[in-house]
Amino acid sequence: MDRERTAPVIITLTTDFGLRDAYVGSMKGVILSIHPHVRIVDITHELPAHRILPAAYLLREACPRFPPGTVHLAVVDPGVGGQRTPLLLKIDERFYVGPDNGIFGLLAADLTLQGAWKLENREHFIHPVSSTFHGRDVFAPVAAHLAAGTPPEAFGPPVTEPSSLSIPAHQEEGGTLRGQIVWIDRFGNCVTNLSEKVVSGWARGASFRIRAASKTIAEMSATYESTPEGEALSLINSLGYLEVACNRARADRTLDLREGDPVVLERAGTSDTRNRHS
Amino acid sequence: MDRERTAPVIITLTTDFGLRDAYVGSMKGVILSIHPHVRIVDITHELPAHRILPAAYLLREACPRFPPGTVHLAVVDPGVGGQRTPLLLKIDERFYVGPDNGIFGLLAADLTLQGAWKLENREHFIHPVSSTFHGRDVFAPVAAHLAAGTPPEAFGPPVTEPSSLSIPAHQEEGGTLRGQIVWIDRFGNCVTNLSEKVVSGWARGASFRIRAASKTIAEMSATYESTPEGEALSLINSLGYLEVACNRARADRTLDLREGDPVVLERAGTSDTRNRHS
Amino acid sequence: MDRERTAPVIITLTTDFGLRDAYVGSMKGVILSIHPHVRIVDITHELPAHRILPAAYLLREACPRFPPGTVHLAVVDPGVGGQRTPLLLKIDERFYVGPDNGIFGLLAADLTLQGAWKLENREHFIHPVSSTFHGRDVFAPVAAHLAAGTPPEAFGPPVTEPSSLSIPAHQEEGGTLRGQIVWIDRFGNCVTNLSEKVVSGWARGASFRIRAASKTIAEMSATYESTPEGEALSLINSLGYLEVACNRARADRTLDLREGDPVVLERAGTSDTRNRHS
Repeated sequence: MDRERTAPVIITLTTDFGLRDAYVGSMKGVILSIHPHVRIVDITHELPAHRILPAAYLLREACPRFPPGTVHLAVVDPGVGGQRTPLLLKIDERFYVGPDNGIFGLLAADLTLQGAWKLENREHFIHPVSSTFHGRDVFAPVAAHLAAGTPPEAFGPPVTEPSSLSIPAHQEEGGTLRGQIVWIDRFGNCVTNLSEKVVSGWARGASFRIRAASKTIAEMSATYESTPEGEALSLINSLGYLEVACNRARADRTLDLREGDPVVLERAGTSDTRNRHS
Repeated sequence: MDRERTAPVIITLTTDFGLRDAYVGSMKGVILSIHPHVRIVDITHELPAHRILPAAYLLREACPRFPPGTVHLAVVDPGVGGQRTPLLLKIDERFYVGPDNGIFGLLAADLTLQGAWKLENREHFIHPVSSTFHGRDVFAPVAAHLAAGTPPEAFGPPVTEPSSLSIPAHQEEGGTLRGQIVWIDRFGNCVTNLSEKVVSGWARGASFRIRAASKTIAEMSATYESTPEGEALSLINSLGYLEVACNRARADRTLDLREGDPVVLERAGTSDTRNRHS
Repeated sequence: MDRERTAPVIITLTTDFGLRDAYVGSMKGVILSIHPHVRIVDITHELPAHRILPAAYLLREACPRFPPGTVHLAVVDPGVGGQRTPLLLKIDERFYVGPDNGIFGLLAADLTLQGAWKLENREHFIHPVSSTFHGRDVFAPVAAHLAAGTPPEAFGPPVTEPSSLSIPAHQEEGGTLRGQIVWIDRFGNCVTNLSEKVVSGWARGASFRIRAASKTIAEMSATYESTPEGEALSLINSLGYLEVACNRARADRTLDLREGDPVVLERAGTSDTRNRHS
């Protein structure tokens, strides 16, 4: 089962389980019992509980930095009974295992989606499969078998178009491009789901203004220091996403922005009256 | 010293030390200085401080999932001056190193206890042994030497019957079996220390009712969905323990149950008036 | 690039980043992409935010316990725009990578400083180097390349006397030796930056009294039990630092002491009136 490898295989873990319960410890035990040579790396177990957008952004930021071949296991548990289809994705030579609920949406939108499979071959699960803990009984053993060399197609049928991968999506309507805030970082910068690629594909070289809450920003900036202190600005951040920020101040507090709030780009001469979800 | 092995040896760490202090980092340094090839896996360092029952349940749940040969180091520190005899156990082909205060009680009660030794050979400790930090000076070096191949009997004399392993114990009195709540999970389900084996050995096929706080449950259920929504029920959970739960509600809040509260099983025709510690 | 080694190389991580963001996960990805065989060990990511003294003490306590050759990466982020020169130190056969802001001050003062280099060879950084996240773009890749065998001098020019290494410093004035509290442990013991070596070098066998807040302690004790219960005392702790404690009580609360407060030693016949920063 074990492929010849020069580099050790890595499984990373990213969950909202916290460390008070035995969930994470049990997952590690399951993985190491199947594949004792794999190396487990914790990304975090403190994702905001049950929330898809922050998970999508954190995974987008951290996972592609690991070596090709890494298996990234991620679970954000939407609560009892709310579990989605278990999914295996191959994106840019890394594997992603977790629920089909949108947490891999930014990764799949930005990078090269190379394959998607539904996890339904129960031979690779831990039995009995509990109804409340797929992390341990489905995702952990699948990640371990995958890391040990089982090919992706052995876990279930291919999925042509995983519905959840379009979440969180942007929308083009008339002269506007609508995105939303997916992450507010420790400095209060508000990151959207609008990637540089999406923005430039939409703008096609024309200028546009940026609306967030009641604020309209006239144009994109190149750096945080390009406005007077405390003033709002918009730039493409180091990961390649459009961000609303304030020079030396917290944009979230200054502009009263929250995760999930819309950010709307408007070409000169157009207007969008729905600048905020009500 | 190093045994020939095909799989790498693992040491897991489970403590209530938190990560604010240098305790956990120091333990890892001690372990890796003695045995640089061992693989350290964190289970959690956020056990509820000083409490035996939750630690006993978390260890019972997570540790047996690791491969045979794993060395599980666990410390719940009952505070200055409260340390118990250091102990080494072999249970079901895994090793357990920690204080003799009951944290391994559920493991030893359910699985096969294959040996117990008192840690008193100071040759395997870090010197000077601090009076307040056995985790670093006693348990960490013992776990590392054990993982490196030192046989259990080299650490001290065998202990025939570690007193603390009967904690947390169940009690049979007349027609009743008394256990207690050892763990309340994230869904509010109240897990007791009564294993399926203990319950069926006591019931011998006869029916019984379950009392928890002021509630009497008429009989055991097979699933969470077997009562109307919000109603209390009792079942054997996926780990094999009797649990008091509510269908789609938190049993801890609905029934006002806390860790340590008694759960009493009564055969038909018997009665136990002490349904709650006062 | 890879040196022949019998023991695997270890990189430890110690930060105040917390685990809510992708910072730590990104650092791990960067490290493993450069050096897939290195072993990453978390010390803690919950250092008190932006504070140098507790970081200095925690690193002093945990890091020297790791095997020689270990690369210790530590970042305490003083906030946007507050970053110091990136530094590489060799202390007592272990490597230290992080900002030149004093966090390695106690290590360098107590142990053998064998070399210091300024990190300025951008060839070993991740590009573009973000202005806010040197942990990922500078320290992580440098630690990985160092662990993979790149010699220290390849990262930049030697630094003869890193200014920040004298922080936190003690001061001798007249008949007094002034230190400060760098760490308050979980028992309320107040550890100073005064090492046994510094204290005995200053005292030269003469007796002295110890002042902390409004309390004067007549002489050093050998153990915590050497005063009546609740009484203040001063001793050299197990790591070799002068500590102000109370027998079976919290010294921080009993004496109203905080991190950063001065502790002053006075030879008999001298006096220092500044017993507290105002």
